[in-house]
Amino acid sequence: MLSKSQIGFIKSLHQKKYRKENGIFIIEGIKSIIEFIPSAYQVNSIYYLAEFKSLLPNLPPNIKLFEVNHADLDKISTLQSPQGILALVNIPDHLPFEVSGLKNSFSLVLDGIQDPGNLGTIIRTADWFGFKNIICSQNTVEVYNPKTVQATMGSLCRVNVFYEQLPSWLPLVKVPVFGALLEGKSSFELEWGKEGVLILGNEGQGISPEVLKFISHPVTIPRIGKAESLNVAISAGILCSDISRNLNK
Amino acid sequence: MLSKSQIGFIKSLHQKKYRKENGIFIIEGIKSIIEFIPSAYQVNSIYYLAEFKSLLPNLPPNIKLFEVNHADLDKISTLQSPQGILALVNIPDHLPFEVSGLKNSFSLVLDGIQDPGNLGTIIRTADWFGFKNIICSQNTVEVYNPKTVQATMGSLCRVNVFYEQLPSWLPLVKVPVFGALLEGKSSFELEWGKEGVLILGNEGQGISPEVLKFISHPVTIPRIGKAESLNVAISAGILCSDISRNLNK
Repeated sequence: MLSKSQIGFIKSLHQKKYRKENGIFIIEGIKSIIEFIPSAYQVNSIYYLAEFKSLLPNLPPNIKLFEVNHADLDKISTLQSPQGILALVNIPDHLPFEVSGLKNSFSLVLDGIQDPGNLGTIIRTADWFGFKNIICSQNTVEVYNPKTVQATMGSLCRVNVFYEQLPSWLPLVKVPVFGALLEGKSSFELEWGKEGVLILGNEGQGISPEVLKFISHPVTIPRIGKAESLNVAISAGILCSDISRNLNK
Repeated sequence: MLSKSQIGFIKSLHQKKYRKENGIFIIEGIKSIIEFIPSAYQVNSIYYLAEFKSLLPNLPPNIKLFEVNHADLDKISTLQSPQGILALVNIPDHLPFEVSGLKNSFSLVLDGIQDPGNLGTIIRTADWFGFKNIICSQNTVEVYNPKTVQATMGSLCRVNVFYEQLPSWLPLVKVPVFGALLEGKSSFELEWGKEGVLILGNEGQGISPEVLKFISHPVTIPRIGKAESLNVAISAGILCSDISRNLNK
């Protein structure tokens, strides 16, 4: 059984304020935990129902283990249907992103994404297509939000997510700056080339005016039917696939 | 103000059982409501905060109007942040889908999609690319689930969603049957042709064995990185874009 203070501490990490204060976030589910253990992230402690113990790999000795009962897991979990195992992971000290890292590759730039599920799904999609870096505006939802972490399905441990002041960061970028807009060159015809960043905007407002002016290559996914817009994670998926097709042809 | 019984009735429609029993579902937000009014759906009644009245178009006389206060709207809304206006819409009597409607077009077939947000996002994406028909297995999440309706962003009124027993329906299909699988022909190279259905499977289990055997053209979105899978709505978006590029070249 966990102590009241342990439960209280883990529950506090459901909130951004306490994640930031303690430098710790929560991951859930055996698949994610197995992916995080050998990654660059440092897993701090693991809380598991008895039946999950045998599923854990050999663990480094610095990871603290706590067997918990269903009632305690329900309390500390961020999920409506807890997945039997949960871990606390240290938030890494992010070094500022070096723009030289953009050369000879594609990276995503997110300007004000608000929905944690969208951010998580974009990270998962970036990982599928082998994009290593995502640069977020400061007002993009926090990457350690439990809904974001869950939606990444473990991909968070393989994709670097940075937060930057985009209006002062974008002028440093020396590769083509693509932006997903409602008016631009058709994604069915665009030549992506071999390097660049692709900017995707906020769910309701799109890309902000301060960021818009840095776009050298506006791109549009052609609309054949009548929907007013596409979900931003869907747009990201379609354009990542197109970029990837071009890089791998 | 609404009566207790009106509030109770609308709240009951948050649940599938009562939506089915009464043949009514809920839509929210001025944009969706404006799109549904002239559509084939019959809007039954509208509940709005005073400031939304001027935003409503000329309405057919059979739509009942109720001005409500914030407290009542909070009670009847399915959203955490109600959008100021909500409508009840009649669930249409769906005729069984005619397979002849598949000729010279592409349609989506969903096998056991469970997440209402995924279903809604797929409907929105289908509408963007002009796909008219989606055929769902009987165990796919209900299309009138409030989270599904919300995620369609109004596109539900332009895309026909049918529920069929796929193992008895698929043998009737006379167009190529594509299926999104982890092993198949690369979507970067596939020739889609001018007609077909594309099957997408459950979030965790993929396409069920009873449905798998009807796939004549397995297709895979090439994985360059390390994510174990793509979100099903992302896969749908990427493949709809590829189909659409081919149809419109």
